[in-house]
Amino acid sequence: MLDQRNSIPRWVSLLYRYGQIYIGDQLKHTEIGKGQHIFLNALYHEDGLTQEELSHYLKIDKGTTAKALKRLEALGYVKRKVCNKDKRANRVFLTDKALAIKSEMKQVLGNWREALTAGLTEEEQQVAFVILEKMGANAADFIKHNMKEGKSL
Amino acid sequence: MLDQRNSIPRWVSLLYRYGQIYIGDQLKHTEIGKGQHIFLNALYHEDGLTQEELSHYLKIDKGTTAKALKRLEALGYVKRKVCNKDKRANRVFLTDKALAIKSEMKQVLGNWREALTAGLTEEEQQVAFVILEKMGANAADFIKHNMKEGKSL
Repeated sequence: MLDQRNSIPRWVSLLYRYGQIYIGDQLKHTEIGKGQHIFLNALYHEDGLTQEELSHYLKIDKGTTAKALKRLEALGYVKRKVCNKDKRANRVFLTDKALAIKSEMKQVLGNWREALTAGLTEEEQQVAFVILEKMGANAADFIKHNMKEGKSL
Repeated sequence: MLDQRNSIPRWVSLLYRYGQIYIGDQLKHTEIGKGQHIFLNALYHEDGLTQEELSHYLKIDKGTTAKALKRLEALGYVKRKVCNKDKRANRVFLTDKALAIKSEMKQVLGNWREALTAGLTEEEQQVAFVILEKMGANAADFIKHNMKEGKSL
């Protein structure tokens, strides 16, 4: 079988996919698809963001963002409204249906956060955080300067 | 704007998505879609794995695995053949077209790996690795015991 030694990006991918599996399983009854809960979660923090702000904040390209929001709108979790200040922009608002599952979603995401760091000392968690932050800054900087297509998020 | 303080799962998601953006951009000309390169990469390590082995190794559910492999087959990167030992299983083999982009893909993935850990000391990289490994084990264990649907990967 395959070599089980993993590189850092492979651990990152694995952790990401495990998270998607767990969260997807727990929220299955809501019909919210893979990778769509993060849009609701961002709106729970700040309702009424524009599509562009969501895309930028979550580092998800505009096409994927638009598709996810269209789906969430069809399911009745968000409403998109043309922005008063900028008619080309859409603001995205949570519906009552979305607010009704807020605490459940927070619980699921919280469970996952705690599960990941179970058994890590306070110091290890701090170190993990600092290193992940450095890697995040590296990633953002690298992308800014190394995209073939010249676009960045 | 949104609070920029991030939890560990949020950093994991961000790093994952940054990786998808960079790798997708670099490999755009190959037409290999988002999240599909990892199947080829696993097959570069060991050609001829079954769909089930790929699904298990990569922690990607069977449906997504089947869809990705179908797409890679349509693009001419893999061939699926019924396994001799188990007629219900499909073995997946790389084509010449896939082998022709192997070194390019390795280069792109290697660039990303190096970009992430740029500026981290040898010791920090070691610590990052150990902590990610612990979180990976936590994630696998948590999923095993906490899935509503009772399935695990």
